[in-house]
Amino acid sequence: MRCIKIDQYKKPQICIPLTGKNLEENKEQLRLIIPKDPDMLELRADFLSNLSDSHYIIKVIKSILDMTDIPLLFTIRSTREGGEPISLDDLGVMNLLKTVCAETNIFMIDYELESNPKYVKELVAYAKTQNKKVVLSYHNFKETPMNEELIEKVLAMEKNNADHAKIAVMPNNQADVFRLLEVTYKLTSELSIPLTTMSMGEIGKISRALGWIYGSNITFAVGAKSSAPGQIEIEPLRKSIDAIKYVI
Amino acid sequence: MRCIKIDQYKKPQICIPLTGKNLEENKEQLRLIIPKDPDMLELRADFLSNLSDSHYIIKVIKSILDMTDIPLLFTIRSTREGGEPISLDDLGVMNLLKTVCAETNIFMIDYELESNPKYVKELVAYAKTQNKKVVLSYHNFKETPMNEELIEKVLAMEKNNADHAKIAVMPNNQADVFRLLEVTYKLTSELSIPLTTMSMGEIGKISRALGWIYGSNITFAVGAKSSAPGQIEIEPLRKSIDAIKYVI
Repeated sequence: MRCIKIDQYKKPQICIPLTGKNLEENKEQLRLIIPKDPDMLELRADFLSNLSDSHYIIKVIKSILDMTDIPLLFTIRSTREGGEPISLDDLGVMNLLKTVCAETNIFMIDYELESNPKYVKELVAYAKTQNKKVVLSYHNFKETPMNEELIEKVLAMEKNNADHAKIAVMPNNQADVFRLLEVTYKLTSELSIPLTTMSMGEIGKISRALGWIYGSNITFAVGAKSSAPGQIEIEPLRKSIDAIKYVI
Repeated sequence: MRCIKIDQYKKPQICIPLTGKNLEENKEQLRLIIPKDPDMLELRADFLSNLSDSHYIIKVIKSILDMTDIPLLFTIRSTREGGEPISLDDLGVMNLLKTVCAETNIFMIDYELESNPKYVKELVAYAKTQNKKVVLSYHNFKETPMNEELIEKVLAMEKNNADHAKIAVMPNNQADVFRLLEVTYKLTSELSIPLTTMSMGEIGKISRALGWIYGSNITFAVGAKSSAPGQIEIEPLRKSIDAIKYVI
């Protein structure tokens, strides 16, 4: 197994979700969030009420990017994996993601590994032509699948040419949380792409603060409004990361 | 497996070793350490040059206890397990520990599990008659034994009526550190006594800051002078513990 040298512990990127239902609400959230200086923003577009109007979506993204140069991740989370109900079908989602890749300066898009395999292939390939990165993701709000299943999913993300792999799962006990951290560490020694993992909910909270020690790259924090259970406010989260980093 | 509820994460006791070679040096260390407000002190008596003079040792302990009411752990670490060379043989060590239990108000004594089994039994029984606690300990400066061996040692400590079990081992890679944390968590669900574990050296440092999350009870920090490799200064260690505690 790879031996991480002490100076290889890398602080995580802190990402804050934007969860407004229209441009105005997102602008308002941004005004609160920008002074907190996150490393990344995630526009959770499934919270937008006008998702079928691609011109409007492009406008929302461009307006956000006019306000800040913090890298922006664009995500349409499905209801299957914990997102808000939306008016687009799967093809509509993929087409909107393509349009966003083509017409804006977003940094990365999120797409679920368990989407239609044909769409996964098509979208990842298209994003590359537009110089946009893709995080392939997997969410499970019921449980933390067995290690073999988690590993299989992450390797499938890599095999599908993701630029980043993401796993967010629900623990049913503390052992699930520690198991996810352990799997994260094992995976980082095998993977050629960055990995982000989190254990959700109250029990899993600790993984948002400690995952980076095990090799997780991004931690999602609360800016204006939480987008998933167990997210921590950015200031105390950053404080805890800095305090640990100082002693190791 | 036991599910630790969030409010069950218990901050560790921070213990600072006293490593002076005589009373004066220990007093000098104490003057530096007391303002740092540790939860426990450990008199590493193997550092004392006069260990065969039991009257002097009693005087050292009483003088320390006159200066502070911080609970004091009395330890004679053997050279086999990383201690300083001493003038007493194994029987002499046990007799001194008995005298210390009988004549002072120390809180706890440390005795190595791998001492003569007869002495272990005798000393643990004697300490109880004097209302003193015993931590049975195991140190390995070469490696982190396999999980089964670690578990076996800790269960042997419990079986020998220890009030506290302690394991300090050297990692050869990062995986060893995470493995020790995982074993610590598993053991705490089975044990009837508190457990303290640490992974030593630079690679293991992180265990001194995070062990408590996995159920480890005491973390040893540097006061005046480090007594084992990888110890962290008390102030930043406490800061990191408080910062994590705040977010979970």
